[in-house]
Amino acid sequence: MNQAASEHTMKHHRRPCADYAARTFLWQVSDDGKVGTITLNRPERKNPLTFDSYAELRDLFRRLVYATDVKVVVVTGAGGNFCSGGDVHEIIGPLTRMSMPELLDFTRMTGDLVKAMRACPQPIVAAVDGVCAGAGAMIALASDMRLGTPAARTAFLFSRVGLAGADMGACTLLPRVIGQGRASELLYTGRSMSAEEGLQWGFFNSLHDGAALMDAAHGLAAQLAAGPTFAHGITKKLLHQEWNMGVDEAIEAEAEAQAICMQTRDFRRAYEAFVAKRKPVFEGD
Amino acid sequence: MNQAASEHTMKHHRRPCADYAARTFLWQVSDDGKVGTITLNRPERKNPLTFDSYAELRDLFRRLVYATDVKVVVVTGAGGNFCSGGDVHEIIGPLTRMSMPELLDFTRMTGDLVKAMRACPQPIVAAVDGVCAGAGAMIALASDMRLGTPAARTAFLFSRVGLAGADMGACTLLPRVIGQGRASELLYTGRSMSAEEGLQWGFFNSLHDGAALMDAAHGLAAQLAAGPTFAHGITKKLLHQEWNMGVDEAIEAEAEAQAICMQTRDFRRAYEAFVAKRKPVFEGD
Amino acid sequence: MNQAASEHTMKHHRRPCADYAARTFLWQVSDDGKVGTITLNRPERKNPLTFDSYAELRDLFRRLVYATDVKVVVVTGAGGNFCSGGDVHEIIGPLTRMSMPELLDFTRMTGDLVKAMRACPQPIVAAVDGVCAGAGAMIALASDMRLGTPAARTAFLFSRVGLAGADMGACTLLPRVIGQGRASELLYTGRSMSAEEGLQWGFFNSLHDGAALMDAAHGLAAQLAAGPTFAHGITKKLLHQEWNMGVDEAIEAEAEAQAICMQTRDFRRAYEAFVAKRKPVFEGD
Repeated sequence: MNQAASEHTMKHHRRPCADYAARTFLWQVSDDGKVGTITLNRPERKNPLTFDSYAELRDLFRRLVYATDVKVVVVTGAGGNFCSGGDVHEIIGPLTRMSMPELLDFTRMTGDLVKAMRACPQPIVAAVDGVCAGAGAMIALASDMRLGTPAARTAFLFSRVGLAGADMGACTLLPRVIGQGRASELLYTGRSMSAEEGLQWGFFNSLHDGAALMDAAHGLAAQLAAGPTFAHGITKKLLHQEWNMGVDEAIEAEAEAQAICMQTRDFRRAYEAFVAKRKPVFEGD
Repeated sequence: MNQAASEHTMKHHRRPCADYAARTFLWQVSDDGKVGTITLNRPERKNPLTFDSYAELRDLFRRLVYATDVKVVVVTGAGGNFCSGGDVHEIIGPLTRMSMPELLDFTRMTGDLVKAMRACPQPIVAAVDGVCAGAGAMIALASDMRLGTPAARTAFLFSRVGLAGADMGACTLLPRVIGQGRASELLYTGRSMSAEEGLQWGFFNSLHDGAALMDAAHGLAAQLAAGPTFAHGITKKLLHQEWNMGVDEAIEAEAEAQAICMQTRDFRRAYEAFVAKRKPVFEGD
Repeated sequence: MNQAASEHTMKHHRRPCADYAARTFLWQVSDDGKVGTITLNRPERKNPLTFDSYAELRDLFRRLVYATDVKVVVVTGAGGNFCSGGDVHEIIGPLTRMSMPELLDFTRMTGDLVKAMRACPQPIVAAVDGVCAGAGAMIALASDMRLGTPAARTAFLFSRVGLAGADMGACTLLPRVIGQGRASELLYTGRSMSAEEGLQWGFFNSLHDGAALMDAAHGLAAQLAAGPTFAHGITKKLLHQEWNMGVDEAIEAEAEAQAICMQTRDFRRAYEAFVAKRKPVFEGD
């Protein structure tokens, strides 16, 4: 393909996400276009998920791979709670009546949401207050970083509804975040992890008063968006790729990845700013 | 195979474990048959292991795969200590005189105990007081959850007897429970981890007074046994299967596993109980 | 090859490291030859790395595989700081002008330093005071254990210079030491981890006053050097080999590794000392 054709394809392929019209949650993009915020927004029910919202979340994260504007994503819930998980009436009821192929369609779709969250280049910051349960806890866990409040109660409560703790990648993600022993207890018992436990165990990166949570999350997001966002995407990709590599293979993967980043303009910008004794201004390319 | 033949085979194949007559440790099953407790019982020597007790433990855990009754296992030691590891006179002495094939027979047998603990569907709760050393520390580590007392002293002391910290899976299990750096120190130096360190580092799920330890362990075991025990077995299997999978492969494995659990009666029981605003009664099928 | 030939080859092949004449850092070996200390020694610049010192560090760790004397390595920095990472003028400037093959040469060389640190049989103790940044933080992370001071400030600051957090294996090593969520924050933001955070999160094994740091590091090194050093090398190798094995495969690897250690003289020495109620004297064979 010649260069003109390639550019045409790339323009066709990449597009902004600021104008995305969400149906099942709120989607707001900061004035500079760099930070997109997903707000689960059925506060009267503590923001449960439905078949439709699972699918739309999956599709938005897949679209974010090609975003020309959004560099960081914040996920939160309206009304003092994060997310109560799959709606009992709209999801669990129908599931009890499904055939095996239909069930697998569903569990693959929920898993695809996590895959899409891990596959997009934007770091994801979860801002968690109040109830964070079931699939909601998995959305928080599938994020890159998590800010909480003292009132956050996080429960991987699958066993409470008769299911395995093995849901949407919980058995692989949770042990690497909080350790195998603590993860085992939470997944077998389905009990709530308190905010304080979450902080001590490394589930939360920090805790904030409820009134300060969104400012903290957007502050972190803005800081990341002002950074070398192409390189952030490489960091995220390598954190994913190296999940089950050996140390030597991971080092080679990073040697290749970092060599790519050393040919970005942001690397040169940082060097020139250092020499000129000023703060670098990154542009993500 | 037709259904009658299959049922015949399954009946022949599955059997209760409540009546198992242990020779080298105590084996007690709760009145409802659901919780089996192994008590290492040579308190005058702090419950060391012998060739016979290693082999019998391995065989019991292998038998538990086919148990029709026991849903959760508690492992503990008599007389205020958990286990002092391989007996110096009965094990270490003979090992110093063995040929290489005999040595490999032994190290594979001890490893098979850990493999059997990870392969049975029952969650295993270790109740640890006092000395928990060497192979004893590995039995605690190979359990799913660990309750301790302030007096618990856990030492992966292999280096103290001239051996590598690489014993029974220590180099793979310990880093995932307490982190690579802390595990490295314990495995190289062989020093004791205090109970407080064990709690802060995620080795212990909780600490209890010595007098309250067994009640706490049996309380947790009873809670798990009252849960969806088929699903617990799936949780345990997936925690094992996903140990070195990539995130995407793990998510697919969980999609398949959870779809299986969604066709259990326990899942329906939970839904029906929720709709009827009552507590679900799980039956493990 | 007959035995005489083999011994000749081995003698030719193995050699002491005590007389190694370092050019770009200090290399000091304890009187008994067992503990080698690397001191990064450009204190006026907080001990930055240069192309030459990267390469010489890599070559020394590769040479240590064949050392007949050194059993433990301590890495530290002169003048109250550990290491400020790649020198901005001597490394970052030239990198901004390199071609892709030259860049990959560089990133592979820095990665080879980590590979060499993980491949030598000597446990490595990092003694960290003050600034520990960029490639310096990676040298600390690639060590087996880390002792710090309250003044230690550790920053994986790659994003601050426009690069990915994926450098020298950071995305694979850091999550296993401090957990995936904390590692993600440090790698995306490039912020400093305080000494207290490093202790609570398992990056540091212990903290010591600045004046006591080197005594603590050499005390730990001497303790390890007085242990079964052949077995320590096996522990290190297995911690490396099992990084992405399944549990069952890891257990078999340890069965084989430990059977090897059971035929060492150190294992017999420990047993005989125990029977004679004296402290074992290990000799590393």
